[in-house]
Amino acid sequence: MGGVILYGSPISTCSARVLLCLEEVGAEYQLVPISMPTGEHKKPDHLARNPFGQIPALEDGDLVLFESRAISRYVLRKYKESGTDLLKEGNLAKSAMVDVWLEAESQQYNPAISPIVYQSLFVPKMRGGTPDQAIIDASLEKFKKVLEVYEARLSKSKYLAGDFFSFADLSHFPYTKYLMVTPYASVFESYPHVKAWWKDITSRPAFKKVSAGMLGS
Amino acid sequence: MGGVILYGSPISTCSARVLLCLEEVGAEYQLVPISMPTGEHKKPDHLARNPFGQIPALEDGDLVLFESRAISRYVLRKYKESGTDLLKEGNLAKSAMVDVWLEAESQQYNPAISPIVYQSLFVPKMRGGTPDQAIIDASLEKFKKVLEVYEARLSKSKYLAGDFFSFADLSHFPYTKYLMVTPYASVFESYPHVKAWWKDITSRPAFKKVSAGMLGS
Ligand SMILES: N[C@@H](CCC(=O)N[C@@H](CS)C(=O)NCC(=O)O)C(=O)O
Ligand SMILES: N[C@@H](CCC(=O)N[C@@H](CS)C(=O)NCC(=O)O)C(=O)O
Repeated sequence: MGGVILYGSPISTCSARVLLCLEEVGAEYQLVPISMPTGEHKKPDHLARNPFGQIPALEDGDLVLFESRAISRYVLRKYKESGTDLLKEGNLAKSAMVDVWLEAESQQYNPAISPIVYQSLFVPKMRGGTPDQAIIDASLEKFKKVLEVYEARLSKSKYLAGDFFSFADLSHFPYTKYLMVTPYASVFESYPHVKAWWKDITSRPAFKKVSAGMLGS
Repeated sequence: MGGVILYGSPISTCSARVLLCLEEVGAEYQLVPISMPTGEHKKPDHLARNPFGQIPALEDGDLVLFESRAISRYVLRKYKESGTDLLKEGNLAKSAMVDVWLEAESQQYNPAISPIVYQSLFVPKMRGGTPDQAIIDASLEKFKKVLEVYEARLSKSKYLAGDFFSFADLSHFPYTKYLMVTPYASVFESYPHVKAWWKDITSRPAFKKVSAGMLGS
């Protein structure tokens, strides 16, 4: 064996982030499913892996990691020789731009898009509830402001960190993929460079493969 | 000259994060103040540095960076030879643990602590408003759950990422420093290992120096 073990679920956005990294670098790995409906992520076995009781978690021998962006960085660093180098840590300027746009994903893009997806997809599909339209509308306004910044950026460079595909692009995939199966997918129509970027990154084999395990595929 | 230029404000939490890094590695830098009360962060000059219209931003020659955690990583990488290496990127396991606890700060600790500080310090002190007690109470409940995880971690290792001080510890400073001047500082009393960790990291010269420029010092 010798591969790493990912505890998670292919339909969870944060697990999908790590799965994409594992696929991009061609790592040997095993996915051990953790069932959220039965509360498996809050039981002692999983709390020993992630004390915050969330998925995903990763095990590599004695090393146990949590938080999807931290796990992803580890995977990308560990396998950078064999696969694509998506962090560019050997280059001071390039790695800085990867980090800038990875933080933009985590601090700006994600807080705006995630309530839209949660309300319009997860609430009805997984909880049998009714979406809160006020939350969706407020988040859409916020998200459009973020997309304006992305449109300006992507009209100047092909990918977020520059002219190379990186972890910064990849990290936007899971929530955007889910936005695309909500009634709000059309928001991308007003941002042609964002739309072209999305088309480009989702044509990668790793994205197609991980996508197939997610909801609405 | 040859130093880097930080655009920000010594009282802002996100600027303080970067200032701490600059001080820890002994970098040559200049702080150019951006006035938030006059809306300088939303004017074209600053939007050219950070399209999201926030502080801080960093300039190093042609390179312009935003997002405090991304800027911090850049500073720590650039000056790691001269100062302390707070990222440990040369060591796969150590750097992974730094990343795990840095993400814990960004995704778990910060979302819980920041509304407490915002409501109980910034709202009355900087906006002349009345704190929303319901928000404070809900965030305190969330924050206590986070502190329980930190207490367990810090009872097993001296610092968050292991037995070495790292960027993960540093990144918790700005909001925690402000919590300590609110009526909710006493929440730390129930978590002796967290309290000891706080005492340890705030005794560092860089922390004392940056602290002196913040509110309530
Ligand atoms: N910041 C964490 C978020 C993880 C997260 O929210 N995971 C969700 C599934 S996508 C979960 O486990 N939710 C259950 C819970 O929070 O109790 C990461 O990036 O890994
Ligand atoms: N995620 C950003 C947050 C930056 C941020 O929120 N900065 C505040 C000052 S601490 C700001 O500029 N606020 C004004 C605004 O958001 O309009 C970072 O870490 O740099």
